[in-house]
Amino acid sequence: MHSVGICGSDVHYWQNGRIGDFVVKKPMVVGHEAAGRVVKVGSAVKHLNVGDRVAIEPGVPRETDEYFKNGRYNLSPTIFFCATPPDDGNLCRYYKHSANFCYKLPDNVTFEEGALIEPLSVGIHACRRAGVTLGSVVFICGAGPIGLVSLLVAKAMGASQVIVTDLSPERLKMAKQLGADFQLTVKKGDAPEQLAKSVHDTLGAQPHMTIECTGAESSIQTAIYATRSGGVVVLVGLGSPMATIPLVNAATREVDIRGVFRYCNTWPMAIAMLSSGKVNVKPLVTHRFPLEQALEAFETTRQGVGIKVMLKCDQNDLNP
Amino acid sequence: MHSVGICGSDVHYWQNGRIGDFVVKKPMVVGHEAAGRVVKVGSAVKHLNVGDRVAIEPGVPRETDEYFKNGRYNLSPTIFFCATPPDDGNLCRYYKHSANFCYKLPDNVTFEEGALIEPLSVGIHACRRAGVTLGSVVFICGAGPIGLVSLLVAKAMGASQVIVTDLSPERLKMAKQLGADFQLTVKKGDAPEQLAKSVHDTLGAQPHMTIECTGAESSIQTAIYATRSGGVVVLVGLGSPMATIPLVNAATREVDIRGVFRYCNTWPMAIAMLSSGKVNVKPLVTHRFPLEQALEAFETTRQGVGIKVMLKCDQNDLNP
Amino acid sequence: MHSVGICGSDVHYWQNGRIGDFVVKKPMVVGHEAAGRVVKVGSAVKHLNVGDRVAIEPGVPRETDEYFKNGRYNLSPTIFFCATPPDDGNLCRYYKHSANFCYKLPDNVTFEEGALIEPLSVGIHACRRAGVTLGSVVFICGAGPIGLVSLLVAKAMGASQVIVTDLSPERLKMAKQLGADFQLTVKKGDAPEQLAKSVHDTLGAQPHMTIECTGAESSIQTAIYATRSGGVVVLVGLGSPMATIPLVNAATREVDIRGVFRYCNTWPMAIAMLSSGKVNVKPLVTHRFPLEQALEAFETTRQGVGIKVMLKCDQNDLNP
Amino acid sequence: MHSVGICGSDVHYWQNGRIGDFVVKKPMVVGHEAAGRVVKVGSAVKHLNVGDRVAIEPGVPRETDEYFKNGRYNLSPTIFFCATPPDDGNLCRYYKHSANFCYKLPDNVTFEEGALIEPLSVGIHACRRAGVTLGSVVFICGAGPIGLVSLLVAKAMGASQVIVTDLSPERLKMAKQLGADFQLTVKKGDAPEQLAKSVHDTLGAQPHMTIECTGAESSIQTAIYATRSGGVVVLVGLGSPMATIPLVNAATREVDIRGVFRYCNTWPMAIAMLSSGKVNVKPLVTHRFPLEQALEAFETTRQGVGIKVMLKCDQNDLNP
Repeated sequence: MHSVGICGSDVHYWQNGRIGDFVVKKPMVVGHEAAGRVVKVGSAVKHLNVGDRVAIEPGVPRETDEYFKNGRYNLSPTIFFCATPPDDGNLCRYYKHSANFCYKLPDNVTFEEGALIEPLSVGIHACRRAGVTLGSVVFICGAGPIGLVSLLVAKAMGASQVIVTDLSPERLKMAKQLGADFQLTVKKGDAPEQLAKSVHDTLGAQPHMTIECTGAESSIQTAIYATRSGGVVVLVGLGSPMATIPLVNAATREVDIRGVFRYCNTWPMAIAMLSSGKVNVKPLVTHRFPLEQALEAFETTRQGVGIKVMLKCDQNDLNP
Repeated sequence: MHSVGICGSDVHYWQNGRIGDFVVKKPMVVGHEAAGRVVKVGSAVKHLNVGDRVAIEPGVPRETDEYFKNGRYNLSPTIFFCATPPDDGNLCRYYKHSANFCYKLPDNVTFEEGALIEPLSVGIHACRRAGVTLGSVVFICGAGPIGLVSLLVAKAMGASQVIVTDLSPERLKMAKQLGADFQLTVKKGDAPEQLAKSVHDTLGAQPHMTIECTGAESSIQTAIYATRSGGVVVLVGLGSPMATIPLVNAATREVDIRGVFRYCNTWPMAIAMLSSGKVNVKPLVTHRFPLEQALEAFETTRQGVGIKVMLKCDQNDLNP
Repeated sequence: MHSVGICGSDVHYWQNGRIGDFVVKKPMVVGHEAAGRVVKVGSAVKHLNVGDRVAIEPGVPRETDEYFKNGRYNLSPTIFFCATPPDDGNLCRYYKHSANFCYKLPDNVTFEEGALIEPLSVGIHACRRAGVTLGSVVFICGAGPIGLVSLLVAKAMGASQVIVTDLSPERLKMAKQLGADFQLTVKKGDAPEQLAKSVHDTLGAQPHMTIECTGAESSIQTAIYATRSGGVVVLVGLGSPMATIPLVNAATREVDIRGVFRYCNTWPMAIAMLSSGKVNVKPLVTHRFPLEQALEAFETTRQGVGIKVMLKCDQNDLNP
Repeated sequence: MHSVGICGSDVHYWQNGRIGDFVVKKPMVVGHEAAGRVVKVGSAVKHLNVGDRVAIEPGVPRETDEYFKNGRYNLSPTIFFCATPPDDGNLCRYYKHSANFCYKLPDNVTFEEGALIEPLSVGIHACRRAGVTLGSVVFICGAGPIGLVSLLVAKAMGASQVIVTDLSPERLKMAKQLGADFQLTVKKGDAPEQLAKSVHDTLGAQPHMTIECTGAESSIQTAIYATRSGGVVVLVGLGSPMATIPLVNAATREVDIRGVFRYCNTWPMAIAMLSSGKVNVKPLVTHRFPLEQALEAFETTRQGVGIKVMLKCDQNDLNP
């Protein structure tokens, strides 16, 4: 392995030992945002050779079930997924993975960009489910790593205007640097309907789609009120299991509510975008630590400092 | 006018003077499930002649806005709609309507079938938004008029199994007569997750889509728990403005939540279905009254007796 | 194996040793419309047991490539496919197949129905690609086995009117028995534009979609002229590699031209349809022969007698 | 009127008096790529005021038919369309048009950009019908005005690689300037299959979709051979009514063939793209003439010099 990013879920398992129904019951390797170099290939593998630089898609279906057959393999209930208990992740020196889910990186794409394909894939899947296209007006709730990659992807898909909201002006500054057209600082306690109106006033229009990346109930409410009739709210952030939302408002305006569970079929298009320079994810990496300092790296993520912390697993190559 | 059905919303306006933000402020003619005979046509009208029997689509866009242009004219905020205040409906003897939204009935389709295209359209739009297709397993919550037309449409679209739930065994009996493969009587207080499990056990499978026609919060919860990952819950019934639902469950299984607001582009296909005999709506009419006995007719609907009450507006022809 | 249907392609390989670029270079077992009983299962197989009755999907992807991942595995260029050289088929007594592509048959579905899922799948895939839905008006060119299964599927998907054309009045009689609303006997040399007009006159409308099952150039031309603007022509029949067609007519009316290559994701929905009785394929089997009389069976198919010839591979059970 | 671009069809009507079935039988004003300033509005118009700068969508449905209702109004057979006989165009000083199809231009969008929305709309409609999205590899045949706008739109929609072919190295130079990743000069007589291979070799991949803008039979053949299985060929260029194409190749690889007829629902998104700077069409205007020199302007277009010739209709304002 060469570069592995730390995700909020890694920190969560470390600190709490569980996320929802997924419980860590025995020691588990974390890490699922990863890129490395091939050191060994099985005899049946034809598309990879020893020495190839690859990005790793962490989810690998275990069964050829209806979901795998119809192209939505992320929904396969028995899927293997790095660092979702009990499956080990790849924050380590050497790691074995299905060659079908290892994608060769072009020379002009770095290992760290390869590792960032994982969070980028969440943005791709969210924007695809939202139907972002040429001229879309997009509202993104939350300027954390996922909100930011959604922003990058929405712009790359042709969105004409993207507005991003967050509690933190610091995060919004980064959103602006990455191409957000409008930023709106929100405060805890803001009334959702009022906030939706502010979004409309700022844009001079109603967003075609909203990508909700916070999971906060009030933010989901705002997302629904803000979205144009006939539009889509995509739920990326996850909050408490039950949420109270203005369902009649959504239903009678045919504002669809769609969740995303990870992603599928995103690595090839992500590599194409990175290689062609259409998306620049490099500014997302704000911290780097050698694998030996993993604890410090995790502390950094836990404290919410910076955006993305990268662990460098190859002692001989600490480059991006 | 010849035949006009009474809808729950008509009763609601009569009894309460409002539905949500729509308030009756001055006398309003009710009725929007209607068919009649052309007595006069404007000079620019080419597709209709005096004497033609027509079904009336009650919603007519007033503006050529983005929604009208992109084929979702039901979402146009300024649309005219019969019997939604302040727009008058068509429960009367003579009525003027945009010829573009009057559809000629074939000889083998009765006036009453023509009037029933309105509720049938709700079922068509719901099943279309749900994506019902060949081999679909469909769960319908509620066996009132809308649940029943959704059942008819789902079967006509190729659904292989349809299960219907309701509090009333009487209504479920009608669902069975109309083609439901399974009926499940529910009780107030049933736990949604438990009910979802009963649906799975009865079907021996998880439904691909659920059409929720009650608006009850617990039923919406059941709909989400019951639907297969990657499936769709369509909200047809409307309850209180805010609803508490298992949103994380829906989101992480990519169960989409889609509302329906009336319908669009349904009359021609409804007429095709009725004329070809693929859908039989005649059993839905359980009561008929001449227009003079409108009060009694409305009382019948208010008391929830039977399924559909039809008012006969043509004194010279009380036939179906 | 229990029942294996004979397909035109089987006869073609037998008589000509090739179809297009697929050349028989060494002895090859034919047969790919098959159902049988499990006599042995691998240790990793969980969904099947010895004794289960199964239908066999003949195409099994060999690689987890982009097509397999995105749900269109029929397009995978390295797919294994029964009786497409050099891959052996299953017209034999015992045969080994990937368990993931063997589907358990419910008790109320016969082996022969199971075998007929293969041609039925061509009809499902064609109608799905055509977008057949409630109220569709469908034009099917050709009343051979594929035209007939397309007819059955189109009706099951909600088509309100289906017109079928063929050179043979005999075949059209069968189309009528299976539910065609209109039949039109065509003659070699009929002018395509004239024929399209006859289709319109007969239907009193233009078809929303046309399913072309003959492969004849003039029939493809007719299909284009006949289809409504904004509609779809699906090419199922295959003729000569190059065809001369009215492309400007199709393009300027946005009549899409879509081919089908076999099928994908059809077995589960086909089984659901057969089990629920929504589609009745039993009348398609017009001849049965024990495996020992395979030559005679093939001769029957070659001479175009009847519709579907079934070979019975289980000496102890010659039932359907 | 302020600025009106000259289209190839304008020249065609001028020189030949007809295009296909559309015949000029009496004097007709040409011009349909237009922008101007409102000098008068009807009393019912609410979204425009005198003095507003507007872009004009030249097609206005005359009837509320099935196409208008379902959002594909460009297919309405009775549509009014500027400069398609017998309907007059807008290359003149003053012109009356349905306000519903006049779109207000933001201050940062020039009149000429407004006029260029018409050809840009062809590119938008073509790319939308092709399904261009993030990471798409796109092949565009022809580097004339339509090929170039398709290139601009494809890149704006997220295409990672676009290859453009043309007979003229000059035109390809412009394609490169506008963002094409690869250019390939073709010669009359090049074998289509060979050319398709060159496209694959140049890209190192097969294009997901091909946008054919020449109408030449050999180019349509190349488009089919070149496109990846499961992809789309969009026909924008129009050639002779009948074309001979490798239909079996397209059909068995499920390469869909889709035409475009003008466009629908493109002006708002085009304005959004121009205003946000996502698409820059300004370099397309290579020549400008005052209205008085219309003959010279038409000669320039007829000779194929430059890309887009703009006529300036406002004597007091010759600015872009």
